[in-house]
Amino acid sequence: MRNCLVAQSGGPTVAINSSLAGVIQGAIDSRQFDTIYGSLNGVQGLLNGRLMDLSEKVEKIPMFIELLKKSPSMYLGSCRYQLPDYKEDDSPYAYIFNKFESYHIDSFFYIGGNDSMDTVDKLNTYAKALGKNIKIIGIPKTIDNDLCVTDHTPGYGSAAKYIASALLEIGHDTSIYPINSVTIVEIMGRDAGWLTGASALARNKYNFAPHLIYLPEVPFNEKQFIEDVKVAMDRYNNVVIAVSEGIKDDKGNYISATSAVEDTFGHSQLSGTGKCLEYIIKQNIQVKVRSIEINILQRSAAHMSSVTDIGEAFRLGRHAVQIALENNSGVMVTAIRKGNDPYSVDMGYTDVKNVAGLIKHVPREWINERGNDVTQKFIDYVYPLILGEPVVKFQRGIPDYLDISHLFPNKIDE
Amino acid sequence: MRNCLVAQSGGPTVAINSSLAGVIQGAIDSRQFDTIYGSLNGVQGLLNGRLMDLSEKVEKIPMFIELLKKSPSMYLGSCRYQLPDYKEDDSPYAYIFNKFESYHIDSFFYIGGNDSMDTVDKLNTYAKALGKNIKIIGIPKTIDNDLCVTDHTPGYGSAAKYIASALLEIGHDTSIYPINSVTIVEIMGRDAGWLTGASALARNKYNFAPHLIYLPEVPFNEKQFIEDVKVAMDRYNNVVIAVSEGIKDDKGNYISATSAVEDTFGHSQLSGTGKCLEYIIKQNIQVKVRSIEINILQRSAAHMSSVTDIGEAFRLGRHAVQIALENNSGVMVTAIRKGNDPYSVDMGYTDVKNVAGLIKHVPREWINERGNDVTQKFIDYVYPLILGEPVVKFQRGIPDYLDISHLFPNKIDE
Repeated sequence: MRNCLVAQSGGPTVAINSSLAGVIQGAIDSRQFDTIYGSLNGVQGLLNGRLMDLSEKVEKIPMFIELLKKSPSMYLGSCRYQLPDYKEDDSPYAYIFNKFESYHIDSFFYIGGNDSMDTVDKLNTYAKALGKNIKIIGIPKTIDNDLCVTDHTPGYGSAAKYIASALLEIGHDTSIYPINSVTIVEIMGRDAGWLTGASALARNKYNFAPHLIYLPEVPFNEKQFIEDVKVAMDRYNNVVIAVSEGIKDDKGNYISATSAVEDTFGHSQLSGTGKCLEYIIKQNIQVKVRSIEINILQRSAAHMSSVTDIGEAFRLGRHAVQIALENNSGVMVTAIRKGNDPYSVDMGYTDVKNVAGLIKHVPREWINERGNDVTQKFIDYVYPLILGEPVVKFQRGIPDYLDISHLFPNKIDE
Repeated sequence: MRNCLVAQSGGPTVAINSSLAGVIQGAIDSRQFDTIYGSLNGVQGLLNGRLMDLSEKVEKIPMFIELLKKSPSMYLGSCRYQLPDYKEDDSPYAYIFNKFESYHIDSFFYIGGNDSMDTVDKLNTYAKALGKNIKIIGIPKTIDNDLCVTDHTPGYGSAAKYIASALLEIGHDTSIYPINSVTIVEIMGRDAGWLTGASALARNKYNFAPHLIYLPEVPFNEKQFIEDVKVAMDRYNNVVIAVSEGIKDDKGNYISATSAVEDTFGHSQLSGTGKCLEYIIKQNIQVKVRSIEINILQRSAAHMSSVTDIGEAFRLGRHAVQIALENNSGVMVTAIRKGNDPYSVDMGYTDVKNVAGLIKHVPREWINERGNDVTQKFIDYVYPLILGEPVVKFQRGIPDYLDISHLFPNKIDE
């Protein structure tokens, strides 16, 4: 008997279920596995015995793979569990590998970001040290697009499409009054500006919003920011500013951390980066100003996903199965861009040590000299990733996604 | 020569341009008008001479009417201008009616909310007092759905669909961790809970989010709120709460106003209602909690509009032309629901005095006794309004909307 196991970890994206679907389809097509299991809530499912028979789901739920590809969030749930160094504490490892053996797991696929790749690395190191013949394969995902080696990460293209569309619609919304206004749009990204930079794709022949873009890669200077806004206000009535939540000053302090506010009880509360820029403008420029946060829909709005992104996520999942069957372990599958005209990617893989715990930043030359916009190189990079619109199935007026009630503990047979 | 004029006012909705398209199509089909003009930025366009020839747009821009129906925000822009009582100051009236005459305006259509209907009332009163034979017709729009007489307002159905879909996607997003969490979702609505109540449509056979719903129609009680959250946490891991920005305590004070925070400069800042509930939970319950605001996309996301809503907005625009040609003035066109099975509406009209400055609240019996959810009556009411998905045209990965560069003053020939 030869089975495989797949799990998801980290934050949600709208493409992570498509990679799961790719693993399932790849495993079925290979005819090398008897049963495909899913571990609920990442490696935690192995520790508390919450495994799901995915082969059965494919048999019982009509169109399961297709629905899974288009459903947001994480079908198998996530976890925040971090494995200790096995040399210090090998008890969770012993438990996990015991489960691998009892379920005849030949290959374990872990879909996640750089923390999850650390887990892949640790499990693989342990397996090698103990001579276990299990293949541990990482599959990238993160809306943040900050994983090394791979050209981009599944989930990023869809989030970028959502952000660009949102900025276009915000551009329309803010244009209705013939008075000056400033609208600050805070976008996710603690360390890298990939998501915020994608807001530039909102621009078209009549929409110039966002007029200013600030990424964490360039130190934020308050005085220069005020100048930038004044210059933009001279040119445009309604100025829209896209800003990463993670912008920092030249000492490396988060701007949001410098704007602590006190509630009525005297407790200090961190306000957001957008709110902070709002205060700066209010204190320095006489203009109507507001800040809005692009909320968690930037990572969950499957109704606005990119077909390119969903398709590549699926291909990476399939590719991971092939890589495992070729006897690799401790690697992460990657997308390698062959070109933009026409755009295409090859699938590859890399030692997971090249990815675990590392962050890929936006290159400085993809940001303009003044640090308040991205350059054409950035736009050329991200543009192909947002293309293509899926046919979203609706039921009763809202999107028809896959049932995830197995994630609610009170409904699970443990 | 006989011309007509149309303008938009108040906040954006994704359906207000469809009503504009309906007026244009109705005026063309009637063959009673030589030219259809649009006033830029509401009545302000009349005061500063910014009129646009819409007949020419129809001729020159291919598919103009169809694109207009599906474009968000306000093609003619908006204004915050309020007319004075003409008995105290008739100078703007003299100016406006002078423009009406010089442009041979026979009918003026004003698309807006209850403030705009006040403008319709004032212009009509002035016209009657001076024996002017111009027809002034109001066309309702507001995502808030708080206009009297009409069964519902154009813009509401699409915003309700966006909110229900967002809550479903947030439900997916919050379900991934097997730990307790509370997510507060703040939704627009200063006076009425129509939008927040629509979040109940997110529920399906597996998604029970939002688990609690608080509307401005029922006084908010902090002690009861804490109890509600604790009870919900016993039943559900990840509790999602939908709350109107406008909830008030039993003395009528906005909850958001009770949570003023001080920034680092000692200035008092109003925090949002969601943030306020977040503090209450943090101080009373040991649980991971966060609050998010459904931002202005709830009124601007044309990519997620309701076909029912867009279609009715168009019909109301056409109907307004017919009503004007039947020599009515000082009225607002209305939607009259004939039934839910099948759902259908008739078009009617009402004296604008029945609408101007008034607010329609959610009936108390459409809210449950404890005041933390809506009842089936509410759901039956709103459900038909969110049905139907438009085919959204995309270009370069983002929605393809109508060019609004004429709204940017530096690009307009005045």
